[in-house]
Amino acid sequence: MTQPSAALIIIGDEILSGRTKDKNINSLAQFLHDRGIRLREVRVIGDDHNRIVGTVQALSAEFDLVFTSGGIGPTHDDITTVAVAAAFDVKVIRHPEADALLIYHYEGTGLDYNSARQKMADIPEGAELIYNPVSAAPGYRIGNVHVMAGVPKIFDAMLMQIEAMLPSGVKQHRISVQTALGEGTLAEGLGVIEGRYNNLSIGSYPWFKPGQYGTAVVVSSLNRDDVDQAAAEVITLIKSLGSTGVIEDVVTGGNTV
Amino acid sequence: MTQPSAALIIIGDEILSGRTKDKNINSLAQFLHDRGIRLREVRVIGDDHNRIVGTVQALSAEFDLVFTSGGIGPTHDDITTVAVAAAFDVKVIRHPEADALLIYHYEGTGLDYNSARQKMADIPEGAELIYNPVSAAPGYRIGNVHVMAGVPKIFDAMLMQIEAMLPSGVKQHRISVQTALGEGTLAEGLGVIEGRYNNLSIGSYPWFKPGQYGTAVVVSSLNRDDVDQAAAEVITLIKSLGSTGVIEDVVTGGNTV
Repeated sequence: MTQPSAALIIIGDEILSGRTKDKNINSLAQFLHDRGIRLREVRVIGDDHNRIVGTVQALSAEFDLVFTSGGIGPTHDDITTVAVAAAFDVKVIRHPEADALLIYHYEGTGLDYNSARQKMADIPEGAELIYNPVSAAPGYRIGNVHVMAGVPKIFDAMLMQIEAMLPSGVKQHRISVQTALGEGTLAEGLGVIEGRYNNLSIGSYPWFKPGQYGTAVVVSSLNRDDVDQAAAEVITLIKSLGSTGVIEDVVTGGNTV
Repeated sequence: MTQPSAALIIIGDEILSGRTKDKNINSLAQFLHDRGIRLREVRVIGDDHNRIVGTVQALSAEFDLVFTSGGIGPTHDDITTVAVAAAFDVKVIRHPEADALLIYHYEGTGLDYNSARQKMADIPEGAELIYNPVSAAPGYRIGNVHVMAGVPKIFDAMLMQIEAMLPSGVKQHRISVQTALGEGTLAEGLGVIEGRYNNLSIGSYPWFKPGQYGTAVVVSSLNRDDVDQAAAEVITLIKSLGSTGVIEDVVTGGNTV
């Protein structure tokens, strides 16, 4: 069993202008990692029709699953749905169930279900709804593309809704080792250890704070035995360099072979 | 005078796996916005040679300026420099000044300037150094591509170093208006206002918290007079819908025509 591949498209001028800090990349990355799906690329693009169409087409052809975030609200700058429909060469239709959900949502709120809000019930023909327990206006899946809201609370809530729609892969087994050695002290030895395995990755992430520094070494693979053995070798390497390595974190996954 | 365009490439498996939260997208977005340079696209990709080469070539051809973050440390998974050199079809050389900076940095630290650390002095031939006041190992500029560290403190410090190397554009003038109206109540009116101007953008960003909601409306353009006038129209629109609009933020820029 392998890992399905995925890409994320963040759509929004407000991220590119620096006005808003993205939160959805990390939410999706963790969500997919926990389910054995490999996030391979993220693109952040502006509210531009042609750019959205081209990016959706390119990434949906290259990866098993595509997720988008942003641009499905009621205003003139919410253009994701028209662009996604164009990418799949289908019409946008008023979706009866989405319409009903929104009518129910606005009942008794004192807010008018006006033409702008009705736009949120417009969905590419043939798409399947992704429910929105926060503010009713749904996302949807068309082909392998999952169109979701940009507001992080709604994005996160939609992720929970799509869980059952997604394939699951084998999760990577991952062990993180902390040491007070500098990355450059470890580098040669880590390269040698990684070279002894197939399809095993050793990442090293230096950190600094006043008067201290160190490195987190992250060993991961679909093969659990390999990860356990390589992590032990990393700890032996650290000892041979005069320091100690502490296992900080184990994310259980993979297969024992 | 126009705005130079820019793209950012974040290189790092640790962002895509969800282990690390990116901080550099927002730092660069704000830095460029303040200098009148328009960030048009961000891509997050893994530590993969061919993917780095292809992404650097595509984005450096399309945009005026490209920035990269990550993969220039001493370890086996730091492959950015070899890939960037391949993208420009030049050799990687041991850069004498970078070498001298690193020798000086490690003197008296008790840390060996070993072959892994020496790798950080290897730079594509013809590149110009970007100094690193935090940990000495430099970034560099080759063609229109600025290669910088992934660690946020070092990335931010390198941004300060490259300030003088960059062109500056006209900064957008931007006014943000807060209101307790829902986005859908405003949508139609905002579209009408935006439609009366050329090259003026009105973004609307809904927010929610327990028992409250509202919308931030952001008017921006290179034409300062247009922004001032359109923002006044937005406030009039909000009043006509029975609420009040408060100017939350003004970022001065643009030209008065």
